[in-house]
This record gives sequence, C-alpha cells and structure tokens, in this order.
Amino acid sequence: MAYDAPVSELVFALEAHAGISKLEGLADFAAYDPDLVVPILEEAAKLARDVLAPLNPVGDRHGAVLTDDGVVAPPGFADAYTAFREGGWMGLSVPEEWGGQGLPKVLALAVMEMFHGANMAFGLCPMLSFGAIEALLAHGTPEQQAAYLPKLVSGEWTGTMNLTEPQAGSDVGALKTRAVPLDDGSYAISGQKIYITWGDHEMAENIIHLVLARLPDAPAGSRGISLFLVPKFIPQADGTPGARNGVRCIGLEKKMGIHGSPTCVMEYTDAKGWLIGEVNKGLACMFTMMNSARLNVGLEGVAVGEAAYQTAFAYAQERKQGRVESVTGPAPILHHADVRRTLTTMRARVAAARAICYACAVAADLSHAAPDAETRAAARVREDLLTPIAKAWSTDMGVDVASLGVQVHGGMGFMNETLAAQLYRDARIAPIYEGTNGIQAIDLVGRKLAGTKGASMRAMITEIEETVREARATNDPQLVQIADRLKAAAAALTEASDWMVRTLPDEPEKALAGATEYLALSGDVIGGHFLARGAIAARALDPAQRARQLALAGYFAETALAAAPGRVPAITEGGARFIEGSEALFGV
Amino acid sequence: MAYDAPVSELVFALEAHAGISKLEGLADFAAYDPDLVVPILEEAAKLARDVLAPLNPVGDRHGAVLTDDGVVAPPGFADAYTAFREGGWMGLSVPEEWGGQGLPKVLALAVMEMFHGANMAFGLCPMLSFGAIEALLAHGTPEQQAAYLPKLVSGEWTGTMNLTEPQAGSDVGALKTRAVPLDDGSYAISGQKIYITWGDHEMAENIIHLVLARLPDAPAGSRGISLFLVPKFIPQADGTPGARNGVRCIGLEKKMGIHGSPTCVMEYTDAKGWLIGEVNKGLACMFTMMNSARLNVGLEGVAVGEAAYQTAFAYAQERKQGRVESVTGPAPILHHADVRRTLTTMRARVAAARAICYACAVAADLSHAAPDAETRAAARVREDLLTPIAKAWSTDMGVDVASLGVQVHGGMGFMNETLAAQLYRDARIAPIYEGTNGIQAIDLVGRKLAGTKGASMRAMITEIEETVREARATNDPQLVQIADRLKAAAAALTEASDWMVRTLPDEPEKALAGATEYLALSGDVIGGHFLARGAIAARALDPAQRARQLALAGYFAETALAAAPGRVPAITEGGARFIEGSEALFGV
Repeated sequence: MAYDAPVSELVFALEAHAGISKLEGLADFAAYDPDLVVPILEEAAKLARDVLAPLNPVGDRHGAVLTDDGVVAPPGFADAYTAFREGGWMGLSVPEEWGGQGLPKVLALAVMEMFHGANMAFGLCPMLSFGAIEALLAHGTPEQQAAYLPKLVSGEWTGTMNLTEPQAGSDVGALKTRAVPLDDGSYAISGQKIYITWGDHEMAENIIHLVLARLPDAPAGSRGISLFLVPKFIPQADGTPGARNGVRCIGLEKKMGIHGSPTCVMEYTDAKGWLIGEVNKGLACMFTMMNSARLNVGLEGVAVGEAAYQTAFAYAQERKQGRVESVTGPAPILHHADVRRTLTTMRARVAAARAICYACAVAADLSHAAPDAETRAAARVREDLLTPIAKAWSTDMGVDVASLGVQVHGGMGFMNETLAAQLYRDARIAPIYEGTNGIQAIDLVGRKLAGTKGASMRAMITEIEETVREARATNDPQLVQIADRLKAAAAALTEASDWMVRTLPDEPEKALAGATEYLALSGDVIGGHFLARGAIAARALDPAQRARQLALAGYFAETALAAAPGRVPAITEGGARFIEGSEALFGV
Repeated sequence: MAYDAPVSELVFALEAHAGISKLEGLADFAAYDPDLVVPILEEAAKLARDVLAPLNPVGDRHGAVLTDDGVVAPPGFADAYTAFREGGWMGLSVPEEWGGQGLPKVLALAVMEMFHGANMAFGLCPMLSFGAIEALLAHGTPEQQAAYLPKLVSGEWTGTMNLTEPQAGSDVGALKTRAVPLDDGSYAISGQKIYITWGDHEMAENIIHLVLARLPDAPAGSRGISLFLVPKFIPQADGTPGARNGVRCIGLEKKMGIHGSPTCVMEYTDAKGWLIGEVNKGLACMFTMMNSARLNVGLEGVAVGEAAYQTAFAYAQERKQGRVESVTGPAPILHHADVRRTLTTMRARVAAARAICYACAVAADLSHAAPDAETRAAARVREDLLTPIAKAWSTDMGVDVASLGVQVHGGMGFMNETLAAQLYRDARIAPIYEGTNGIQAIDLVGRKLAGTKGASMRAMITEIEETVREARATNDPQLVQIADRLKAAAAALTEASDWMVRTLPDEPEKALAGATEYLALSGDVIGGHFLARGAIAARALDPAQRARQLALAGYFAETALAAAPGRVPAITEGGARFIEGSEALFGV
C-alpha cells in the first residue's frame, strides 16, 4: 500500500507532545487559528496520498536524467510540483508580507513530513527552497528579498544549498570555490560543487543557488567563507528570468536511494553571484539554513519510518502464514506476537521521533515569536538542544525502522521494487547529509550541552521530572510504572550529562568518544518523556486513543527507558577502552 | 579496498573463542592436524582475495541472466567456480570415503566465512551444495550416496534447497508441490518453488535439487511433507548426466542485493525425483540441511560485517576531513574519536558473532565426533542452543555493521556502486532467509530453551561464571571490570531465561512477544563472554594482540554487557504492553 498520512496522530503530536497551543495569540502568528490545523493537514494529506505517493516508485525506477538541456525530473514530477506550488504549500510559514501565510513553522514541518513520507525524493526540492527562503529572510538585503523571496515563496523558483566539494564535506572550511569581486558589486563564482540536491531540473522557471565560496584574499579555513546567491537565470529588470548564468549540472550521482531526486555535480564558471550577509561570514549564514534543514532531515527520518510502518502493517494484515488460536485457517502474520512486537517498536519509535521534531519546531517558533525576551531565550536554548537530537536520533531511527519494515515483509521485502526495500535504501541518506550524525553528536555535546554548561539539558530534565510527578499523580498503575522508568532514565541522562560537561574541557577526545552514545541516550529519554506526556494527555480522550497512547508509552518505557541506566557506561567508560587500545586496534 | 581475510583473527577465534583444540585426536578427524589450520586458511584467503573479491562488484552490476538455455552466472563466476572446485574446497569437512578431507566442520565454516566475505553471492552456491551433501550423508540410501555424493563433494555438481512456495514461506507446511509415485519407485514431481538460490546456472554440469513435496495421500500440514532428490539431468548408468529432467527456471527475482546469485522461480513438471528418507518425514530431513544452513547464514552476517569493517577502516585511513592535534594538516578521519568508536563497535560485534558461530560449529563437530555419549549429548544441546543465536544475532549484526560502514563513508557510502553500499544491500537478506530471525527467536525460546527446561542456557551460564572467575583471578583491573560486567549480564540472562521457561507454558503469547529481545540479550551476553575469554587467553600472546583483545572485550563489556540488565524488562514486561493495547493499536 502507498503512504496515507496519519493526520490524527500528527495532530495529537502537535498538541500533546509539542505543545502547539503555546503559539496561540502570538502577534507573529496572527493568521494562526487552531481550528485550521486539521483542515490544512487534511488538504496536505490529499496531495501526499493522491499525487506524491503514486510517484514514489516511479521516481525510484526512472530516476532523474541529465540531458543536453539540463536535468529532467522523473515522469510526473513536474506536474506534481505544479500541484504543490498551486496549493500554496511553499509559503505556509513565511510572513504574509512575502506572500506566505504567516503560520507557525511547526505546521509547515508537519506538512513536509507528509510530503517526505509520500515521496522523500520529491520532498527534498521544497525543503531546499525553504532553506533558501530562510537564509534570505535572515540575511538578504531588502533588494535581494524583494527580487527573490516572492518567487521562491510562491514556488515559481526553487532553491539549493551548495556546500560540499570533493575535499570539503564535513570540513566545510576546506572548500576552494572562488568568488572574484566585479566592478558592479557582484562576484564571479568559479568552482565545482558536489552532492547538490535538485541542483538542476525543469520543474521551475528558475533555480536560486546559495553557494559557499572564498574571496581571493579570504583567510584560510571556515573564517574565510562567504555566501553567495547565484541564480540559474539572471533576473531582468521586470523580475523575470533573463540571461543564462555560468552554472550547470555536469553529472548526476548514481545513488542507492532517493533516485527521484537529482544529486548534481554543479560547475560554476564565472557565474554571476551576489553576496548574502557579510564577507567571510558565510558559514554563519549557512547555519541559518542548516539548522532548519537539520530539523527537516530529522523529519525525513520520521516520514520514512512512518511509511515503513504503514507498509509493514498493511503487509502483516494481508500475508497469511501459520496458525493461531483466535483465527480459523491460516492467520495473517499480524496475529503472531513477534510481528506485533516489531510493529509496536516501529510505531513507538516513530512517535517518539515525531514528538522530538515537533517540539523542536515549536521551540523554533517561540524563539522568534514569544513576546518576552526570557521565553524567547529559553526557547532558543531548547531549539538548539533538540536540533541535533531531532536530526540524528530520528534519522538513525528511520534506518532501523525501515530495516524492520523489510523484515516484516520477509523475502518480499528484499525484492528491489517493493516499497519496503525502497524505503530501506532511501532512508540511508538521512543520517549522512546536512551534517553526519557524528557531527550532530559533537554539536550536541560541544556547543549545545557544554556550551551552556549543561543548563540546556538541565532545563529539559526539569521538565521530565514534572512529567514524572504528573504521571504518578494519576495513580494509574501503568502510568506510575512509566513514571518510575522515566525517573531512572532521567537520572541516567543527568549522570551522563554531568560527566560530559566535566570531561569535555580536559579530556576532549574521551568525551567526544562518547558523543554518539550520549545523543542516542538523550533521544531515548526525551522521546520517552514526550510519549509519557502523551499518555497522560490521552486520558482526556476516547478509550481507544487512551489505550493506544498508553501502550506506546508503556512499551517504549519498558524497552528504551528501562535500558537507559545501563547505557551510561558506554558513554563514560566505552571511549577509554578504544582510546587506550587505539594503537593496537588501528595503528594510530 | 576489497576484502582480505583476517586469517590471524580467524585463527584466534578458532583457538581462544571456540576451543578447536577439543577436536584434536578424535577418530572422526584423524586427518586433522592443528599445524594445517593456518596453511589451509591462508590458501582459502588467497582464493577469496584474488579470485572472489574482484568479482563481487561484477556480480552486483551484472547480476545473473535468464536465457533460453537457462541461467547464466555473472561474468567470471564460472571460472571462479572452477578454481573453487579444483581447490577441493567443497569437501573440506566431508568424510574421506566420499572424496572429502575429513576435517572438522568448523574449519569448513571458517573457510566459507572468507568466501562469503569476499563475495557472498558466490558463496551461496557452495553453501547450498553443502546442505545437499549433509542431507544425503544423513538420510540418503547407500545407492543415492554412491550416485550423488562423489559428484557433489568434488564440486562437479551443485545442490539446491527447494522449500518456499508463494503461499508457503515460514509456514512450510502449507506447500502444495505434488509427488506422484511411479512404478519404478521414483516420483513425478510437479509444482512451483520460489526464492531458489542458484536454482539454475551453467557453472556445473549438473544441479541436484532437494525438493519438499506432498504425496497424493499425505496428511495436511507439515506432517505430510516428503523430501525428494530431483537432478537437473538424470544420471546415466555410468554416472554421467543424461536426459534433461522436467525442472527449469522460469524467472529470476530482482533483488535489492546479492545480485550475483540467481534467485530462481523453479517449475517442476512431472520431474523425476527420488525419495530421501522416509515418506512424510521430509521436514525432519530438511532440518538436517537447515541447521547447517542456519549456522552458515550466521557466518554470512559475520562475513559481510567483516567486509564492511575492512572497507570502512580503509576509507577512514584515506579520507581527510578536519584537524586533530596529533596530525599536521587535514587528518584522516580515523583520528576522530567518533569514527574510531564506530569502527570499534563494528570490530567488536563482528568478533563476538564470529566467536558464537565458531563455537556453535565446534559443538556440532563434537556432537558427532566426541568419543563418549555424554560429551556428544552436551555438545548437541550446545549446538542446538547456539544455532538460532548464531543465525539471528550475527545477521542482525551484519545489517547494523554494514549500515555503520556506510556511515563512515559519508556521502560516498550512499553511492550505489561503492562496496559499502553493496554490503548494506547484500546484508539485508540474511536475517530473512533460512528461517526469519523471528522464527529463530521462537525456536530458541520454545525448542532450545523451554525444550530443555532451561538446562541448555544454564550450562552456558555455568561456563560464563567460570570465565568470570578466571577473569577476576588475573587481578588485571580491566579484566576484573569486564568480569563484573559479565557477571551482572549473566545474572540478567538467568533472570530472563527463568521467566521465559516459567511463562511459556501458561502464557505463550506473552512469552513469544519477548522472544526476539531474549535472543538479542542472549547473543550479547554469550558474545561478551567469548570476547572476555579471548582477552584472558591473549595474555599469553604478544603485547599488541593482548591490547587488541582487551580493548575489544572491554569496549563490548561497557556497551553490550553493561546494558544487559536494563534490557530484561523488554522481555518480561514489553510484550504485555502491546498485547493489552493490541486492539487499540492494530485492531486485533
């Protein structure tokens, strides 16, 4: 079966996990009416189900093609993009002055989750446009904003991010693309960029490349990088696309997944570009896009995980093997306990990741839109903390859950053209791009945790302790058991956090050796916390929803949360083992 | 880089983990000389490295092709098979009376690990021949053995296993292929079988299919299944292949991985076949092949994991990104702690899985060859216990480790034709075939654990406690810490085992809901135990080996073993959560 967005679960996550109600009545979101949430999501769900999902296997089989006239998207993608554009989806969370709808970012992300779930290869195109919009909103001059934002927000034009070069991946500072100042205030950009998602295509009339490059006299490393806007067609005085610029796609990568999304090698030959933000501050500008993109990539993990769950659940209902007491004749494999365990694992982990991502998005909204500076600052700390967890934990989950989805399908899951197999291949990119998950872990322990002397995580743990109290106060035995697991898990996270803050300054290698395990533990505990909060909130809902949320939170508590205390040694002791044995193991 | 077998690590695993010395001096292994182990493995390593590994990407890109004359293997495979055959590798562990070398099975498995590591798609062909040989050795009539064994053992002919039909996968009892008795004592076999690995090819002059089918008057279900031998060409009186039989490949599956291995849809139309073993006892006969095949598939997980580790390690030495104190200029990513953590995880888990598989193989050897009945019986219990763990734990590990290998490669790992990506795709089949890992978990808790009232696992835990004592007796602080972790982990395994034995009779669904988690815990604890034993044994070796084994055992202890106690609730409590919420979650 193809993807069908679980709108009610998204709404539940927005309300019970992420606390979207905090955004009501804020001046920046004057257009936000809680009653519109369901209609908006249902409209997006239609596009996802009816237009994007049927094209997912098409994109996988056909891929994009590089022709003499540039890249051509897979069959049907251009029409789908037109439908997307005409639906006004690109501008959902963009201020109304630029043609957007002025809604909270968290809603735009919930919509993007559906588009990614239906067709991740397609979803990447608007995702990158959104990054370009955010960079221009934050760093563009009024003239740049006027020239580019309306077209990007309407979806008439799309955007890209150009960071990576063959020698400069995680180490962006090693990039070599040159930008030579011209007399008219613009720059001539020359160099080669790789791994450029939707770097070229025929679905929009223009493509706006945001490109990191180096001025001739720039300092070495990451402090000598500037950000440039390089349009495929240079806008004319009337705003319409004019002369072809010196940028083109010279190759497409042959990838394991997301075949529908062209991954381009881009060549810049004296391409005309304009500086965005300040000279040599390009990395900071790019981080505006990156933070948003990282959260969005986290949602790709959620989306692929959800799609994998749906297809596995559908298969488990159809496929009959073996017998069980409650069924006459061969039983659907759904009736076998082990299959339901697998499906529960998938569903609980997807829900936990969704909660983390949405909570991060609400924090991002509040960090801009809250009326008082204190709330904004606290929200910013929370957004910063949750961003690397949202990105890495959710995308690792996406890979694991897609793999479980293959397993539920048995031999059928290994057939290359089943959706389960496609999702397993598609999911694998998300832990890699927009900063590998290892980079996310280093960001979490270095900048987000130690950079606040642990205060960011302490604030989260204070919130978790409040959930523990609330769960206990219900006197529901199952919620009390969840509270016990959550409390012990939070204590483990506190212990690991304190160790990390203490160890990083003096023994950075030892601390960083535990960073990935620390991020994994953080995601488990915070995810379990949100699910527990959901189970409490669901007490006010119908019995089925109540039972569902309790089962998911309870299962997660007995698996991930119960395991949390035992995982602290991996963080605090594991690193020392291979650092001491490094010479014998690796010769370094 | 291509696969290069780590012979010294295999030898270490054979000696220190698996206890191959127990096989010295046994009458069945009169040909076994410990001094021959290294030369044999080195000779096999050459074939793996020089012949099979270079063909691995060829097989992936070209795949096998179905022509009017049958299936044609990928370019180079037929020559490689000839080299394999001429090397005498097929008969390594077959009794000398059938043309084999009479060596322990564990050695044949170590050799197969190398062939799988170099080229898993290729390795499947001899693996299936081996299964056919074992079935004939155990259940064939003297005439059948004389007619088929010499040709199979020499590798002139290959073998297949034909179980699955579209409606009969894990539920083998649902199969419909018919066997009608003929006057000459043979049978006419008709039906369709799917997922038949190396079901047809041109590399050998004949192919011997072992086929499960049903007599006209057979009882329903698995008690009405008989096993038949169906040659592609019917042997003539002089033993050479004669008339073409009524069996052919009518389709090849398009798979996500192991493209070099043809996965055939086989059609039987009144094909001439001969009964193997007794009527309606086919499943028991097939289990002779299955047990061996399951251990062999576990080794595929080890092999793919080892290959993934090697290619990731090589990439981490070459790829330069970022800077570290100890290196001038951009540093190979191997110097980053997080990359070394990933590599250590890969290496430790591969070593643990290899130890489990080899230990299982030594137990299999002892179960036949030990002089006294008591030792044979104990070895049999041990083999039975370890087989599902070897299969499932190792193949899940293979998938995880292949995924980590992709991650170390960054964007390059997502390119479809890198070895890292191929291994990620290839690895995914192993948890599925030869009994899904869910089936293995049910076999472990039902037949192997509860079937012995827990005695099988208690024997293993007694052994683990002995290792704890030995580790403590060294007074090496690191080994003492490993001992502490191991002791707590063994206690957790005991608790989970007792719960399982207690719960299975009265609440089977609840028990089976925890089966997969129980298997995972078992593998972690038993794997950690073998690594600890290795670290103790390595004290007698050179400092580098000593440091290496201590680092691997120590890292595994601080990660998998330390986490073990916290994973018991997933087994004992997790199931109840989704069973109670099943109606709300899944509608059943």
